Amino acid sequence: MNGPSGNVPTIGVFDSGFGGLTVLRALIARMPQARFAFLGDTARLPYGSKSRRTIARYAVQSAQFLVNEQGAEYLVIACNTASALALDAIQEAVPVPVLGVIEPGAAAARAASTTRDVLVVATDATVHSHAYSAACQAQGLRALEKACPLLVPLVEEGWTSHPVTAEVIRIYLDELRADAATRGMSADTLVLGCTHYPLLRPLIQQVLDGCGPCAIRVIDSAESTAEAAVKLFNGRTANATGLTAHTEIRCFATDSVEKFERLGSRFLERPVGRVELIDLGG
Amino acid sequence: MNGPSGNVPTIGVFDSGFGGLTVLRALIARMPQARFAFLGDTARLPYGSKSRRTIARYAVQSAQFLVNEQGAEYLVIACNTASALALDAIQEAVPVPVLGVIEPGAAAARAASTTRDVLVVATDATVHSHAYSAACQAQGLRALEKACPLLVPLVEEGWTSHPVTAEVIRIYLDELRADAATRGMSADTLVLGCTHYPLLRPLIQQVLDGCGPCAIRVIDSAESTAEAAVKLFNGRTANATGLTAHTEIRCFATDSVEKFERLGSRFLERPVGRVELIDLGG
Repeated sequence: MNGPSGNVPTIGVFDSGFGGLTVLRALIARMPQARFAFLGDTARLPYGSKSRRTIARYAVQSAQFLVNEQGAEYLVIACNTASALALDAIQEAVPVPVLGVIEPGAAAARAASTTRDVLVVATDATVHSHAYSAACQAQGLRALEKACPLLVPLVEEGWTSHPVTAEVIRIYLDELRADAATRGMSADTLVLGCTHYPLLRPLIQQVLDGCGPCAIRVIDSAESTAEAAVKLFNGRTANATGLTAHTEIRCFATDSVEKFERLGSRFLERPVGRVELIDLGG
Repeated sequence: MNGPSGNVPTIGVFDSGFGGLTVLRALIARMPQARFAFLGDTARLPYGSKSRRTIARYAVQSAQFLVNEQGAEYLVIACNTASALALDAIQEAVPVPVLGVIEPGAAAARAASTTRDVLVVATDATVHSHAYSAACQAQGLRALEKACPLLVPLVEEGWTSHPVTAEVIRIYLDELRADAATRGMSADTLVLGCTHYPLLRPLIQQVLDGCGPCAIRVIDSAESTAEAAVKLFNGRTANATGLTAHTEIRCFATDSVEKFERLGSRFLERPVGRVELIDLGG
């Protein structure tokens, strides 16, 4: 299958906001020759507080924009809430392969864990969906999830290496590990189940290292998803390493692009450039 | 003018979420004989990231629900973003007196300040609107605003007396006062320009007291708005003190009511009871 651009496939990446740019960054690192179209449905975020039906409707509209109007031949749903609640609906609605972020994270945890007990940190909405627990269970893992609602605002404030953020991470991880201990779990793996959290990975590792010889391995689901994408896309796009001048990226948003443009480069680790405003309706 | 309930007027209170319950709490304390209908447009929050036109449309729909379907004879817009960007549109759309939260906060600052220099802490969206600066300028005050985006999530996490929150407040206030000093301002008043912040008032006061003899007076715009409401409503409702059995409160929300019911009682300082789900359309 070749896309409208000949041999260069277009990969559509979708998020309710711009956190999914961490997934796009991981995809670019592995598929620098691809074209990417990223859509942040910023007018309708946060998805987490909305019903499954509403989320599916929004996500399908967004997926159709990427496939029908941007010619995406593959879709990556770089949004935990949409992956948890709307992956089936998206797969039914578009005729291209669709990959979410949750299964790859659980599969990577399966590969990393020897105790088969894993911890998951995520937003309130993702934890309430129990999507990681279900995906981990399907991999033969026991998972304990914890909502860490302060981490996204701390990342968006730019405090990714701030002492306050380290303290908040320490509190959350202490609570999570105490809870795991009371359940008799011996967890050796921590899944970062939110697209904002890769920016906190160094600090999370530092806090874990400070806990003594706990030997907990951190799984970044953005990285895991990008690895799964390379396999799913059958190697068509992975013919070089690192970012090259051939990478073509277009970013779209459904509402005010100011925050997207201002913060997005931290997530993408390169300028996001001009973000194009589109209207997907109500 | 009497409402559908005879001598007992109905006051409609509107917010994009449930933070405005702090304003409702202040209103109940001053008008315990009134009926209150509170609407949180939770399906469409946050308003802060949306355009003025969209916010006006949402706010007008919400105001019309309170007036036309709940018989509100007065409206209090307990939402800084809607007060900043949609007060005129609401006043044109409904035939009842409408009060926002910004003018009363600025007027209270005017009454409190002797130096005429005031500080304002608020959300990113409110600061970007510069509504407090404009309202303070109209009162002959010079205002310096600071966005404090971590405070709302800290309140919603329940960390209203947590050392991390105290540290975040200290950092924000230090930055704000340093900025004021470089501008040659001698501020003696701090306006809490967000409906979540009254829950942090004790901690904010504690941080200010720890700064030495700075003598900064804190203005809670929820309290100021309730005081202005009593005057605007012409004393019709202020015939007792404190909460009595006569206070009748109905709460409405446009999307999942779980978070509203779970967190709302902290803001209202009494149980919010059952929150009724309504549909205002797209």
